[in-house]
Amino acid sequence: MKSLSSLQQLIEAFRHLPGIGPKSAQRMAYHLLQHDRDGAQQLSVALANAISSVRHCERCNTFTESEVCEMCSDQERDASLLCITETPADQMMIEQTLTFKGYYFVLMGSLSPLDGIGPKEIHFDKLIKRATDGIVKEVVLATSFNNEGEATAHYISEMLKVRGIRVSRLARGVPVGAELEYVDVGTIARAFLDRRST
Amino acid sequence: MKSLSSLQQLIEAFRHLPGIGPKSAQRMAYHLLQHDRDGAQQLSVALANAISSVRHCERCNTFTESEVCEMCSDQERDASLLCITETPADQMMIEQTLTFKGYYFVLMGSLSPLDGIGPKEIHFDKLIKRATDGIVKEVVLATSFNNEGEATAHYISEMLKVRGIRVSRLARGVPVGAELEYVDVGTIARAFLDRRST
Repeated sequence: MKSLSSLQQLIEAFRHLPGIGPKSAQRMAYHLLQHDRDGAQQLSVALANAISSVRHCERCNTFTESEVCEMCSDQERDASLLCITETPADQMMIEQTLTFKGYYFVLMGSLSPLDGIGPKEIHFDKLIKRATDGIVKEVVLATSFNNEGEATAHYISEMLKVRGIRVSRLARGVPVGAELEYVDVGTIARAFLDRRST
Repeated sequence: MKSLSSLQQLIEAFRHLPGIGPKSAQRMAYHLLQHDRDGAQQLSVALANAISSVRHCERCNTFTESEVCEMCSDQERDASLLCITETPADQMMIEQTLTFKGYYFVLMGSLSPLDGIGPKEIHFDKLIKRATDGIVKEVVLATSFNNEGEATAHYISEMLKVRGIRVSRLARGVPVGAELEYVDVGTIARAFLDRRST
């Protein structure tokens, strides 16, 4: 239908969002046009603004609007510690724990050769440059504990160790609050192997 | 974080989409900025275009960019039949069946007093004007078969009958291809009551 082209284009454009299929895209377009044109306007402007102003921090690679992000500009942090996360969301979660006071490096992904994501796509050269600045003493690997995250951690760990940097990984084990009966066997096995003297 | 404002604004703007919570909104924003800036640009432009050009058809109330939509402009259709649907998506589904050759009226919603959606919000005056043009002989109610849809169908049916218009409703019954064992009891009861001689 030629007369509906801008509506059809909007539905197609929503398909660019992750996890959105044709039905959801249609529902989103109808909803905004019928019930929330102000919201649609805000989203349009927010997208245009973000595209033009959001870029990557020179030091930690996370999203920022300045050359260096706010966290990297904070002089109060411990420059000997560098924590590596996959996404800004993971970084936020770690910040919320209030247990880490060093700096971060955000990979913006994890190694996944089948999807064409190799060392270049996770900004490996930038990471090496950042980690070997002579001030970083320990790199804490906080990538996810799924296959891609573990492979990424292993790769980075090997590459940093040959450059003489101490590398650690978040502890694996039984989650806080968990009842053993309902924890998967792999996690309990790991917790046994990594048991700590009290 | 002040330096992230345009990113935060984008995440907030995604919350306007139906069924999108804070985590999904964040994932969408990160995904577009990291992997699909072209897609983000297309979405921004498509939203702006749709807001400025999509409006409601003078006759059937569906989304269109002209005064009267393409389907209402089609002179080949049977003007004595008017099918009432809740959404343009429902209308498309009926078109795909190739069984209906009349015109449509799209309510753009269904009666739901608890949500503040009354006769005015489903464009009831426009519907009455359309249905009582002297040419329409039968109105086919194709609203959904949930509570809101049934209530809407009942209300419209009563209002049109007093104006002397014949009103029908899509048949309720066992879906095509269904095995009786797995059909819900309410549907089977309805199919019994509405059984047809063969």
